[in-house]
Amino acid sequence: MEQITGGITAVPGVLAAGINCGIKSQNKDLALIFCRQPATVAAMFTTNEVKAAPIQLCQQKFAVGFAQAVIINSGNANAGTGDQGMADCRKMAETTAQGLNISDDMVWVASTGIIGVPMPMDKITAGIRRIIPQLSSQGGEAAAEAIITTDTHPKQLAVSLPLSAGKVTMGGMVKGAGMIRPKMATMLCFLTTDAKVEQSHLQSALQRAVEGSFNLISIDGDTSTNDMIMMMATGEGPSLEPGSRDWAGFEEGLRYITRELAYQLILDAEGATKLIRIQVTGAKSREQARKVAFAIADSNLVKCAFFGQHLNWGRILAAAGYAGAGVDPKCLDIYIGGIKLVEGGARFAAADEAAAQAGLACREITLRVDLGLGDSAIEVLTCDFSLEYVKINAHYQT
Amino acid sequence: MEQITGGITAVPGVLAAGINCGIKSQNKDLALIFCRQPATVAAMFTTNEVKAAPIQLCQQKFAVGFAQAVIINSGNANAGTGDQGMADCRKMAETTAQGLNISDDMVWVASTGIIGVPMPMDKITAGIRRIIPQLSSQGGEAAAEAIITTDTHPKQLAVSLPLSAGKVTMGGMVKGAGMIRPKMATMLCFLTTDAKVEQSHLQSALQRAVEGSFNLISIDGDTSTNDMIMMMATGEGPSLEPGSRDWAGFEEGLRYITRELAYQLILDAEGATKLIRIQVTGAKSREQARKVAFAIADSNLVKCAFFGQHLNWGRILAAAGYAGAGVDPKCLDIYIGGIKLVEGGARFAAADEAAAQAGLACREITLRVDLGLGDSAIEVLTCDFSLEYVKINAHYQT
Repeated sequence: MEQITGGITAVPGVLAAGINCGIKSQNKDLALIFCRQPATVAAMFTTNEVKAAPIQLCQQKFAVGFAQAVIINSGNANAGTGDQGMADCRKMAETTAQGLNISDDMVWVASTGIIGVPMPMDKITAGIRRIIPQLSSQGGEAAAEAIITTDTHPKQLAVSLPLSAGKVTMGGMVKGAGMIRPKMATMLCFLTTDAKVEQSHLQSALQRAVEGSFNLISIDGDTSTNDMIMMMATGEGPSLEPGSRDWAGFEEGLRYITRELAYQLILDAEGATKLIRIQVTGAKSREQARKVAFAIADSNLVKCAFFGQHLNWGRILAAAGYAGAGVDPKCLDIYIGGIKLVEGGARFAAADEAAAQAGLACREITLRVDLGLGDSAIEVLTCDFSLEYVKINAHYQT
Repeated sequence: MEQITGGITAVPGVLAAGINCGIKSQNKDLALIFCRQPATVAAMFTTNEVKAAPIQLCQQKFAVGFAQAVIINSGNANAGTGDQGMADCRKMAETTAQGLNISDDMVWVASTGIIGVPMPMDKITAGIRRIIPQLSSQGGEAAAEAIITTDTHPKQLAVSLPLSAGKVTMGGMVKGAGMIRPKMATMLCFLTTDAKVEQSHLQSALQRAVEGSFNLISIDGDTSTNDMIMMMATGEGPSLEPGSRDWAGFEEGLRYITRELAYQLILDAEGATKLIRIQVTGAKSREQARKVAFAIADSNLVKCAFFGQHLNWGRILAAAGYAGAGVDPKCLDIYIGGIKLVEGGARFAAADEAAAQAGLACREITLRVDLGLGDSAIEVLTCDFSLEYVKINAHYQT
């Protein structure tokens, strides 16, 4: 596997563009991805019971099995917008389909930004007409820029997979910096590949990859109304099927790209100064490990302590205890930066606390909680909780 | 019912004291409550699976059915302290029992403060010997001062109930400002009464009161290792039994005192600038209402918006959606300060947003989410999420 440049448009036959259409006063806010020919589509959507209009529309279109384009705006989530929001969303797909001269069915829609504000459709419709001529095989970066909101920079990635059936390329872009505690997907993520894969296989590969990447991160415990991950396989490249060695290589590439994008997302979390890897080991089951890991990842007190660089394992122990996961404090050990601080639920007498304290200054910190009950393990990524997060979310309408 | 002064020592036959014994560099940190004669005891303990030593000890003593004293320290939680912590906890009870010349069984222990630090037993033992002679029927205030940690002031209350069987007095004190999301009790709360009540009746009355008070608040979603609520009924006053009109009056007094103390606790939440009443109405069940209310109460994004005085109902809608409670956005209305902002999951066209915005400047704000699905309702109290909260929890070891 080789990492290459170009993001989603690194994949042959995939074009993209990103422009400002006036939803935001400045910065790009409209992106378009277009495949030369209909692509097999796989997707996962937010589990939030309040679903934005584009989520509802794409869930309907999923049954078609193929998609050729997706029009994405940032700055307005088109959520909490009622029937008008749904009509606006359909209009975005129609306008895009007309401009590209393809069927409505082939066009997906995604939106991200403030909830509850009507879509400025005049600007968006004009923007769609203006973005189509700018589609380009170099447009991945511009598209990645156009989908971000409070993110400080665009996030994209592409890899080349030298499989025995031939070279397969895979690209992706993601956005999200707050309201991130994905349960089935992340804020918005778009993946492309030129492999030829049936929808059912693509879908199950995507689900497995997401389970090990975007479903193992949390910035603030809030699950968005607009979460969506969409993958388009153009089929211009080699044909792949489960069970082959090439398939394993394909899944490895997909796993790599989703994990890397999830990692980038946490690195750029709203206001974060640290990335924290929470490893829970020695669990009776993956579910037990997950409960403990997310209780810690979502604890404001734990996250504030990391922000303040305080070696406060008591808060970690407390979070493990209220996770409702059936932990036994007498078996529980805690390590920070590889240094054992807690043994059997109490302070480890021989702990090198000075070294552990020094490690808290690092940008990335690994926290391990060993439950001492079994062989299951999980790693969840989160960030610290800073003054900047509160400022961002107190003073800006996002 | 009449509100009176004196807190826990407003109850005849209850003595208390509060001193500094050196766990903290200044401020009181050791409290003692003593009943002239053994009192019927009721109690609830944290549901955290990691339980501090005093919680474990009191759970054992509960079976005795009576208690006569409780020794309480702040500044150290005696949690995550292993076998030594348990031995220290027993030693606190023994020293107190010896000084008071009563049985070990009759002495409960409670601790609150930092987790994972050994108890400074020399100071505590000396403190216990010093506090006993200071017991007084005026000592309620000093005891309430001695149990606080990051609270900005002591919290206590007492009422007099004119029942047909005679006058009953009830007093209480509480502490807690962070790590508050009680599941069976709050941080530390002590209640006294002179009523004569059997343990089983006292216990069920206490559970009902807590269900409608401390179990309906959340400051930060973190459930402590040391939560405990303890009630002592000295039996010096009238004898009460369920089923009588006096019993209803007694339960009403208990409900009032626990709700008032829970309210005081949220008002003094770490860094909070606002108290937010989250009312969920029109739910299919109390459990559905509870899930939605706590999802909103624990959403950092919602709480940051209130801190910033931003009218951001989209975040409230999103939290209701990810509560996993089976809401239907099409039936969901949102009111802030009594002003309808959302109807059927979308912006209410006739909303007086300017008035709602102006209301966000108030110290107390009522947020109502009507699910439009049934007749059940709940009210949960929470607070906003401020820069000060992050500062407190980043820079102090609590």
